[in-house]
Amino acid sequence: MPSEFELIRRYFNRPCAHTDLSVGDDAALVRPASGMQLAISTDMLIAGTHFFPDTDPCDLGWKALAVNLSDLAAMGAQARWAVLGLALPDVDEPWLSRFADGLFHCADQYGVDLVGGDTTRGPLAIGVTIFGEVPNGSAIRRDGAHPGDEIWISGQPGLAALGLACLQQRITLPTAARTRCIHALQHPEPRLALGLALRGVASAMLDVSDGLIGDLNHILERSGCGAEIDATLLPLTPLLAAGADEPLARRCLLAGGDDYELLFSAPPSMQTTLAALSTQLQLPLTRIGHITEHRGQLLLREVDGRLLPPLVSGYDHFA
Amino acid sequence: MPSEFELIRRYFNRPCAHTDLSVGDDAALVRPASGMQLAISTDMLIAGTHFFPDTDPCDLGWKALAVNLSDLAAMGAQARWAVLGLALPDVDEPWLSRFADGLFHCADQYGVDLVGGDTTRGPLAIGVTIFGEVPNGSAIRRDGAHPGDEIWISGQPGLAALGLACLQQRITLPTAARTRCIHALQHPEPRLALGLALRGVASAMLDVSDGLIGDLNHILERSGCGAEIDATLLPLTPLLAAGADEPLARRCLLAGGDDYELLFSAPPSMQTTLAALSTQLQLPLTRIGHITEHRGQLLLREVDGRLLPPLVSGYDHFA
Repeated sequence: MPSEFELIRRYFNRPCAHTDLSVGDDAALVRPASGMQLAISTDMLIAGTHFFPDTDPCDLGWKALAVNLSDLAAMGAQARWAVLGLALPDVDEPWLSRFADGLFHCADQYGVDLVGGDTTRGPLAIGVTIFGEVPNGSAIRRDGAHPGDEIWISGQPGLAALGLACLQQRITLPTAARTRCIHALQHPEPRLALGLALRGVASAMLDVSDGLIGDLNHILERSGCGAEIDATLLPLTPLLAAGADEPLARRCLLAGGDDYELLFSAPPSMQTTLAALSTQLQLPLTRIGHITEHRGQLLLREVDGRLLPPLVSGYDHFA
Repeated sequence: MPSEFELIRRYFNRPCAHTDLSVGDDAALVRPASGMQLAISTDMLIAGTHFFPDTDPCDLGWKALAVNLSDLAAMGAQARWAVLGLALPDVDEPWLSRFADGLFHCADQYGVDLVGGDTTRGPLAIGVTIFGEVPNGSAIRRDGAHPGDEIWISGQPGLAALGLACLQQRITLPTAARTRCIHALQHPEPRLALGLALRGVASAMLDVSDGLIGDLNHILERSGCGAEIDATLLPLTPLLAAGADEPLARRCLLAGGDDYELLFSAPPSMQTTLAALSTQLQLPLTRIGHITEHRGQLLLREVDGRLLPPLVSGYDHFA
């Protein structure tokens, strides 16, 4: 059986593009550019909690890196380096090979060097820590939203939650829609280009991992304001077209996890800029409401004009 | 039950000393000093693989950070920041509180800011990624050993392995010795001050986590040379005094894991410097052999003068 060191050499040691010292020493050495802040984020993915143990390891490798990259996108940072911690119940080389393929496919696509890691025996768990660069003071934080700012969401939130419901056999969708929704769940695209383009445009931002409403609440808490979401603006049509009924579509859109779309606030003066950006990136950007001065108050304006608390919330691993 | 976010706020969000943006956004923001390389290392600790599930969480919190700090020490880097990934089977607040106490005790002692993390449900697993700074080109790597350099080890390797054997009830030691050995196992002191002082002194270095012989082999591989260890120089006396017999003491010293002492090579001209450093840091530094030109050949010169391959090897999680 190959050793821990041989496994790392065989599957996780590939040439780096912008790293002084990579896998194989006590620590990696990298050189952040002068005038830059380093953005750091970490996520753990646990079999049974975050993914089905029989998930295609290629998808899993992609997603393990993609969800971390999404955190950098949400800061407006340029992705640069990553390290990987991997606990495996046993050495399954075909599994490892496909996992590494998925991981490096994502790394190559977004210009990330994998610079270090740790492989050990244990229940299947994946920990990724990611590093990006952002010019001093340019990061888009959660605490910059102001009353009057408009609230925007990228892409199509809700598809991943529909995909999960399919895999859990809680719903049945037509084949093409099912395939698209499961792909959204297993192969999220981190919105790095959008994140970079939103520096100086968005006033606050995060990525939607635990559900749109729950995550919007984090912006409201940190920014000390409230929000009003307009039900008539929600991009429900693609979810309805996929085969969801209206209540399910709304729940998936507002409370579905695993979307990894960017949710951000921006002054109304940015509408033209955002429309141009949407065209340039070929990525829908949808205005869904606005920030209010009512600290901590998140309301949904229904189609009939009533203002109600949204009856959905975010995902909590310990709830 | 408190939410994931409330747990993080309650136990892992403490004031930072040198961090622009800490826990609570998509990513932390830190600012490495100009002219510095960033040293990055990650380690995963899994219940049942790296520690007994009933280990005192305070010791565990200390050790999770300490073993990562040891990797920075081994590069000659100054410790600066850390992030934590924590998978927990359930929310046990007294456990979390003690774990955080141990972790922050270590962080405070070595000047580390905990800047981010991820808490999730799963089999108990701890992932720490650590960041340090080292002036460009000053890191002490594994690939700098030269024939003629002497080989040195800090502290007392072997105590942790004796402690593990006690806990596994494979040996019985007198109470005081048992306490000391278990303390060495559960409360390793990362040799950060030594690591910094060895910049410009040591030619190659690593920390001994998987056993002295196994880890020395990593230096030999990377440096393309060999080594001869002199059995008469091995610091066996403290292990014998603790109650181990000669074969056990030797096995613990040469192949025991979890020591987190620094193993390094240095030119013979550094002997006086190293003696002074040992006094200054009140830390034993023991010369145990020298580097040879025989690529990949690690030999032990026995007390009777014979040169033999050491009949021990390092720890491999998948062996």
